[in-house]
Amino acid sequence: MSGAGTIHGVGLGPGDQDLMSVRADRLVRNAKHIAFFRKAGRKGQARTLVDGMLHPEAIEFAMEYPVTTEIPLSDPRYNEILSAFYADCVAHLRKLAEAGEDVVVLCEGDPFFYGSFMHLYTRLKDDVPVQVVPATTGMSAAWTATGQPITWGDDILTVLMGTLSEEDLAQNMARSDAIVVMKIGRNIDKVRRALRTAGKYDAAWLVEFASMPKQTVQKLSEAEDKVTPYFSIIVVHGNGRRP
Amino acid sequence: MSGAGTIHGVGLGPGDQDLMSVRADRLVRNAKHIAFFRKAGRKGQARTLVDGMLHPEAIEFAMEYPVTTEIPLSDPRYNEILSAFYADCVAHLRKLAEAGEDVVVLCEGDPFFYGSFMHLYTRLKDDVPVQVVPATTGMSAAWTATGQPITWGDDILTVLMGTLSEEDLAQNMARSDAIVVMKIGRNIDKVRRALRTAGKYDAAWLVEFASMPKQTVQKLSEAEDKVTPYFSIIVVHGNGRRP
Repeated sequence: MSGAGTIHGVGLGPGDQDLMSVRADRLVRNAKHIAFFRKAGRKGQARTLVDGMLHPEAIEFAMEYPVTTEIPLSDPRYNEILSAFYADCVAHLRKLAEAGEDVVVLCEGDPFFYGSFMHLYTRLKDDVPVQVVPATTGMSAAWTATGQPITWGDDILTVLMGTLSEEDLAQNMARSDAIVVMKIGRNIDKVRRALRTAGKYDAAWLVEFASMPKQTVQKLSEAEDKVTPYFSIIVVHGNGRRP
Repeated sequence: MSGAGTIHGVGLGPGDQDLMSVRADRLVRNAKHIAFFRKAGRKGQARTLVDGMLHPEAIEFAMEYPVTTEIPLSDPRYNEILSAFYADCVAHLRKLAEAGEDVVVLCEGDPFFYGSFMHLYTRLKDDVPVQVVPATTGMSAAWTATGQPITWGDDILTVLMGTLSEEDLAQNMARSDAIVVMKIGRNIDKVRRALRTAGKYDAAWLVEFASMPKQTVQKLSEAEDKVTPYFSIIVVHGNGRRP
């Protein structure tokens, strides 16, 4: 491995370039090789986030997700297709690293917190040097946008994905003081029902595009029938002990 | 409020200056007025974190916590003493803002996530302009330090304070996929027992001083009898769905 380049999984934070870490900013601006995930036919959210920052001669490697929307998560083909896709990405990155090249993989949010980079990381880490740069999460930007602290004193914070079952959502919401729900999009009606069951609906906020120019912040109850992106975040604030 | 200065609650991140956001870095370096909490007789963790960054003529306002270790949390005097302390801090900051001065309040981690700044924020926000800069949390630095992603797929993450009762800790640990426990210190034996009850003890990691030069990372089970700081973080990784 001597002379091998390093794969940097660089957390870009919630979406505002000014909230990137000093380290991420430096790595992105100086990178010769940049890699990022995107949906086929799109520019990609992570790539868009670094617009204007890349070195003019940076070499870009777009990792385009295979189209899987027609295949349910439970279908074994779903895992097969994604596994083959990750294997292809990893082969390319490993080759670059083995040739002595450093690569910056652009990661939205914090790479180890529900991030796509983790799928590359686990496949690369035993073969080539991999470094991960933690970052401000989208949920931090979301609760900051609401103008209210998320957790006080001994408050329990639970982070839930909108893809969970309604029952799991409701049970976990009921036992928690502060709540963050991510991966909303088409799950929003289920999430609303679960919040109602848990008695937390009226306390919930919906934040879209946290920290980005098109950010919106509303009480969830005032956003009835709203169609919202997958990356929206729902926040319920804790109300714990405070002097 | 026209002509009033702004109180900036600036998240400094987990402890490495290189992990501060570009915005935090700029605000800290340019600040004319800096404020920070510290224990009496100490330099202060937040202040130490910006060593070498402050403008040579920056005016520092150290907010020294009244000594409360002898008074139990449940004693009404505890709240009275802290309330009076926060009122004093706020009076000073409000006066600066009303005189047109901007002030940077240094905040470890993310200001709205169990942060001391929240006590100033709620008392200031209706009177003078207050801006909050979110940041990388200590827990992100901790799970990154373990070299393993914290959450996959639909994993449920629960954040718990070591100050909770053993029963609350154990019940919430048992129900969650991924776990973060903060405020460890003297609570470590209780946290260990709760993790054992929840069947998660062998999967737990102890991270001290995440992202700082004296960072340590160990399996909790290999740190028996260890005396660890209050700001240590215990991490149990989720193992959710992945291709």
